Amino acid sequence: MRVFGIDPGSVRTGYGCVESDGRTHRLIGCGALASPSGAALPARLHSIHTRLLTLLRQYAPDCVAIENLFHARNVRSALTLGHARGVAVLAAVQAGAPVLEYTPAEVKLAVVGYGRAEKAQLQQMIKLLLGLDALPAPHDAADALAIAICHAQSQSPIGRLHAEAAGGRRARSWRHVRPGDLPGRPLP
Amino acid sequence: MRVFGIDPGSVRTGYGCVESDGRTHRLIGCGALASPSGAALPARLHSIHTRLLTLLRQYAPDCVAIENLFHARNVRSALTLGHARGVAVLAAVQAGAPVLEYTPAEVKLAVVGYGRAEKAQLQQMIKLLLGLDALPAPHDAADALAIAICHAQSQSPIGRLHAEAAGGRRARSWRHVRPGDLPGRPLP
Repeated sequence: MRVFGIDPGSVRTGYGCVESDGRTHRLIGCGALASPSGAALPARLHSIHTRLLTLLRQYAPDCVAIENLFHARNVRSALTLGHARGVAVLAAVQAGAPVLEYTPAEVKLAVVGYGRAEKAQLQQMIKLLLGLDALPAPHDAADALAIAICHAQSQSPIGRLHAEAAGGRRARSWRHVRPGDLPGRPLP
Repeated sequence: MRVFGIDPGSVRTGYGCVESDGRTHRLIGCGALASPSGAALPARLHSIHTRLLTLLRQYAPDCVAIENLFHARNVRSALTLGHARGVAVLAAVQAGAPVLEYTPAEVKLAVVGYGRAEKAQLQQMIKLLLGLDALPAPHDAADALAIAICHAQSQSPIGRLHAEAAGGRRARSWRHVRPGDLPGRPLP
């Protein structure tokens, strides 16, 4: 299974693609899409969308996993972040991939085994799980890889058992794209 | 000048297009893009984006005016609304139109002359200004027409004087699309 993870942001959007059988994972590619310096919001959105769509068509993942946030500093920053996340979800739909969302706590629980793990612990686990020589950088790319690995693990029988034993919630999937393909609850 | 107004929403997105010399306005078209009933967020975003892009290419406006919100019920609803607004802004950029944003108070001030006007007053003014036989419906379409008229009026010398006399702020424009085309401050 090939999973493409996205960590959306209005300034920088991380992405990471892994090939996985649910237990062993292999890095396909990762990076962060930085917006042109000083660019206004429409230009940033256009840049994120165009580059993500190109990557998604290049990597042809079986599904896209994206970070879900319930918290933001304030309504204004939530609106801005929503813009970036909106065009990222749109790119996934246009590339024909089903989209699943995971909260940061779900990602940490799946990858590190502890829902309140530190960023550094998460990066170390990504390095170990993918057999990398160095920590994946920038941290947006590491976060995106963690989201992808979180989804890949949740698809294996052992991953499901672990998640259930830890009381973790299942991924929320937006089922309309390929109904029945994936576990999870549909979003409203 | 042809202005295309957008009132973005996650469930229904209003649009309205007017031809204007800054003082007299003519309706070109308006409506509301309702999402498929019960559709999940990715399907809704895809639907909004595809249909807006088609309309923008059909009407070929000189610019797009979109409602700016600083307030939402909570962070969660701001995130959801941000998704819809993000794909609407993306469609405008892809259609080659510069994007300007106005707050609801700026729209009411420009169209009704009072920043805290009621929805019904706004609809009546739209009916009068466009010489319509009936109130524009649904209200999302009326809101979008009001945003378009607000921008058109702000471009006329008299409209600018009025706005300055009333202490109204100028539109915020995202200048990168066609630098120098429009007044206003660039957004961060």
